[in-house]
Amino acid sequence: MSAVEGLTQDAFLGGRLAIRQPERGYRAGIDPVLLAAAVPAAAGQSVLELGCGVGVASLCLGARVPGLALTGVELQPAYADLARENARANGIALDIVTADLAALPASLRGRGFDHVIANPPYHLRECGSAAPDPGRETALGEATPLALWIETAARRLAPGGWLTLIQRAERLPAVLGAMDTRLGSVELLPLTARLGRPAKLVLLRARKGGKGAFRLHSPLILHEGSRHERDGDSYVPAISDVLRRGAALSWPG
Amino acid sequence: MSAVEGLTQDAFLGGRLAIRQPERGYRAGIDPVLLAAAVPAAAGQSVLELGCGVGVASLCLGARVPGLALTGVELQPAYADLARENARANGIALDIVTADLAALPASLRGRGFDHVIANPPYHLRECGSAAPDPGRETALGEATPLALWIETAARRLAPGGWLTLIQRAERLPAVLGAMDTRLGSVELLPLTARLGRPAKLVLLRARKGGKGAFRLHSPLILHEGSRHERDGDSYVPAISDVLRRGAALSWPG
Repeated sequence: MSAVEGLTQDAFLGGRLAIRQPERGYRAGIDPVLLAAAVPAAAGQSVLELGCGVGVASLCLGARVPGLALTGVELQPAYADLARENARANGIALDIVTADLAALPASLRGRGFDHVIANPPYHLRECGSAAPDPGRETALGEATPLALWIETAARRLAPGGWLTLIQRAERLPAVLGAMDTRLGSVELLPLTARLGRPAKLVLLRARKGGKGAFRLHSPLILHEGSRHERDGDSYVPAISDVLRRGAALSWPG
Repeated sequence: MSAVEGLTQDAFLGGRLAIRQPERGYRAGIDPVLLAAAVPAAAGQSVLELGCGVGVASLCLGARVPGLALTGVELQPAYADLARENARANGIALDIVTADLAALPASLRGRGFDHVIANPPYHLRECGSAAPDPGRETALGEATPLALWIETAARRLAPGGWLTLIQRAERLPAVLGAMDTRLGSVELLPLTARLGRPAKLVLLRARKGGKGAFRLHSPLILHEGSRHERDGDSYVPAISDVLRRGAALSWPG
């Protein structure tokens, strides 16, 4: 791990997963855990994660749903190596391919997956601060345009397969603007910190060949109360179940 | 009015406006009233409505905010004539231009407006039923691509001017996908029939030259209760104030 110095080991899903990740650079928070919880996958299905980083989303999904065939693609070799190590250490089968989304190897280009999942990187430089760490720069920057992420997902899905994405709410116009015509039945689930507040994150799912109209669901609220009242864990029970006990996050009917 | 046979006269804003509109074809409901209520216009400002139909949104706005310079563009002469008649009958100055958005006359192309407002037509044919009335077909169909509506709005706004749109929620991907690069500080306010339900309508506003990040607000709920319980008017007080008393609809801070 010469390329990534200074690692931490962090617990996810209430300790079910121990994840090694760089102390500095892109670090997994609740986003990949929520993403994994929102994927409607069942035993026996195949899942491809685009830009899997150190593997948190795929490993959370594997911990919740046994019997999945999990594959992760990661551009940066140091993160890919950590993802392999994390899979091994947590006893979850996860095949990691070190590759650029724009040039997937033939072994992946020949496959159709039941699910594609992604937490595409977002651009911090708009806020005026260039990220000092080059790994963080690639993970958070716009090295690969969002449209390529969604197009790659659409290509790699089997007919009827599901794309599930999580993204900062401020990038919603870019995400919807890049939505591939092969994907339909798009659903948007805003995630808001507290009742009545703007959404911070959005979950999206879409189906290859789906014909349903776009649906904008009522937001899912993450925290109890109308403002930050204490430093402890104030998550609503359904979110606490996702983050601490590895529960599924159910989409509104 | 030979082109539009069978007119009704309908009360808006609790009777403040009497609007003549075709009995069949595109008929104004709550959408243009909510649109008008959401426009942050002040006395002395100029407002351009794209696709004004019989003039409901512009006239609601004129009834709420005195001293506006209101202009409406309408492609279909029969609707444009009704808009002129409705303006006269309600004592509100509204200049109606019969024109195609794709070919606005020089008198409009030379102007920059403080506000542009629109309720762009949406496509019912996706649901499998061609509209039997040709006026309704044009008003609801996709005769003019959404991108042209938004581009025309962006061109006609003065620097710092506001675009305010209302649209069926299912068309949000198309609206955001068509958003013009000249527009920024985009805000989305979902409107949902009842607590916890998917959004039916969305209000959007954006500012010419705006630099703010996209914001996805908490939804505004239209009706009291969690389900339809009685046939009467079950609007929440803020919405009832908009529809019956011509109040403004305030955007979340």
